[in-house]
Formats: sequence, structure tokens, C-alpha cells
Amino acid sequence: MARVKLQISISLDGFAAGTNIGTQHPLGENGELLHKWMFNAATEIDKQLSTEYFTTTGAFILGKSMVDLGIPYWGDDGTFGMPCFVLTHHPQPVLVKGPTTFHFITDGIESALAQAKAAAGDKDVVIGGGATITQQYLKLGLIDDLYIHLVPVLLGKGTRLFDNLDGFPREFNVVEAIHTPNATHIHYTQ
Amino acid sequence: MARVKLQISISLDGFAAGTNIGTQHPLGENGELLHKWMFNAATEIDKQLSTEYFTTTGAFILGKSMVDLGIPYWGDDGTFGMPCFVLTHHPQPVLVKGPTTFHFITDGIESALAQAKAAAGDKDVVIGGGATITQQYLKLGLIDDLYIHLVPVLLGKGTRLFDNLDGFPREFNVVEAIHTPNATHIHYTQ
Repeated sequence: MARVKLQISISLDGFAAGTNIGTQHPLGENGELLHKWMFNAATEIDKQLSTEYFTTTGAFILGKSMVDLGIPYWGDDGTFGMPCFVLTHHPQPVLVKGPTTFHFITDGIESALAQAKAAAGDKDVVIGGGATITQQYLKLGLIDDLYIHLVPVLLGKGTRLFDNLDGFPREFNVVEAIHTPNATHIHYTQ
Repeated sequence: MARVKLQISISLDGFAAGTNIGTQHPLGENGELLHKWMFNAATEIDKQLSTEYFTTTGAFILGKSMVDLGIPYWGDDGTFGMPCFVLTHHPQPVLVKGPTTFHFITDGIESALAQAKAAAGDKDVVIGGGATITQQYLKLGLIDDLYIHLVPVLLGKGTRLFDNLDGFPREFNVVEAIHTPNATHIHYTQ
């Protein structure tokens, strides 16, 4: 049975992006500090984790703003190499970038999840951000696993990942915490 | 040379206390979930960490609200067993509880730190919360080590530890991350 996973990098002060998100700063100002562990500064362990996540994943669910800002950076193959379900309020035809297909879903997060599960088959569905859709899935208790990459930086300001979660507390189990100089990679289950 | 350490438990969503802090809920509603790792649910590793912090510490710096609310719970020995420097706006005589002395400091956070260092001798000074004084020390860059006990719970609301930190980003080094089912204990240095 495919699992539904949240996969996201946050700063020590809980921001998933910096301020002033836009074409100039797709991750917000200083937001690139949150993804150093995946790129130039990556250790072998960081790289292995990053690769593992992709090989076990059969479909992504993404927010529309993230896709709008990311597309120019994701190249001709669309980066993901699998079906991506994009939550939006405005219908839009499927966008194909090499092996990546972006399906724009207008009938809500549960429909997006059902379609992503169908597309993923035996593999997992990853909710890849941003903060708004993450909060919606968390509130409905639809996420089985949280993979939080906690980056050792205080951004000071930006978009908080865990916000607007009235109706909590909710306790999780810690499955594993893997530590590199770039990030503490923590796996939680509900 | 004594080091200045921040030592604090936070939820996965970054809260150091729940809402409605007061005599009924000294840690705010559900705030007790943040300290399970130190008490009944503690594993051997949690207990060892908790003991180590006390044996290497020569003085604490605490916020006034924390002390006001904590005193009734801290018993006749005052819990800390060493000098505690309490930041406040109102002068107050020294309060002695067995081996613990609470000194009320009215001339600012740098004076409190100097006095705590003098009292600690070769041992370390620990900033033990709450959020407000932590933010003041962080902004001035006066903290050498951050010991964050990240508890696997989303509280949903409360007092955020890392807030009001305009003027950042600031990157830290991760020295160690120790994982138990109760908390991920992460040691950062500036």
C-alpha cells in the first residue's frame, strides 16, 4: 500500500521559504539556504537520502505557486520525472515536460490525493509543498509520514510551514533522525 | 572559559509553551507535552542528557514570568541548586530556596549575563527561557551553543521560541543530534 509522505526542508525557526517570494526569489529571500543540503554542499548521506526519496515515489502533489515559480528552473525534463498533481482554482490543460506531467486539479485536496495514489501504484505519494497545501493535508490527518529536513539556520522571517493548525495538538512517533552538517533529517509517523 | 548555552524544549511547530499560560497551566495548555522527555517517559539517554546539563552548569538566566509561575512547583530546594539570575523590571530582594538563589536583575540582559558568568566560574551559563529573553540574547549574538530538544508534537498554537528575529538570517553548525522516541536533542554552535 502506497504511503502519503510530506517531504520538506525548513529552517530552525520553522520557515519553508523566505519573504518576498517571486520570480526573483522563487524560494523567498535567503530561501536557497534551505536547499543547500540537496545541492552543492550535499554530503554522501544527504545525496543518498535525496535519491531514495525519488526512487520510492510514484507521484507528487504540489501547490500552484510553487509550480509557477519553479517551472523556469526545472528544465526540459520538469525535474520530477513522474506525474505531479497541482492544486489550483483555475482549470488548465496537462503540461508535459519530458517524463514529468503536471495535472492541474481544481476539485480539492482529497481528489488530488486519490488521483496521485492511482498514478503512483505501489509507490508512495509525496506532498512536496508549499506550506498552504501541507497545512490542509495535515489538518485532515491525511499524511502518514513526515520527512522534515531541519536546516541549521534561523531565517528570521518568511512562510512558516506549521501554521494555522488550530484543532491540534497531535503527537507523532519519531522513526529515525539522520544527522549531517547540512541538516537533521527526521522521519515522523502519525 | 564558561560557555553560554540556550537549553530549551520546543514542539515540531516551534512552540516553547502552549496558550493561556497562567497558574492553572504554567507551561500553557498542552505545554506539559514538551517536557515528557525529562520526566515519566524519559529513556536512559534522555535522563543522561538531562543530568549532564545540570552538572556542567554553574548559573541559570531565567525570565521573570517563568520564575513566578514555576516557584510553586520547584519545591523547597528551588530545583536548580545554583544561582539563578532573573530578568525583571522591578527590584526584588534575593530569594533563597535551599541551594538555589534567585537574584532579580533590573539593569538588562548584558548585566545579567556578566553576573551569571561571575557566579558560574569555570562552569557554563544556561539561558533556560522563556521565549522573550531567548530572543533578546539571540539577537545580540550572545549565545555560544543552542541545545534544542525538538519534541514530536504539533501543538498548533502557543508561544513561538524563534520569533521577532528580524535582522537574521544566521547560520549555525550542527555539532550533534541525539535521537530518542521522546525528542531529537540537537546541539548547534554559532
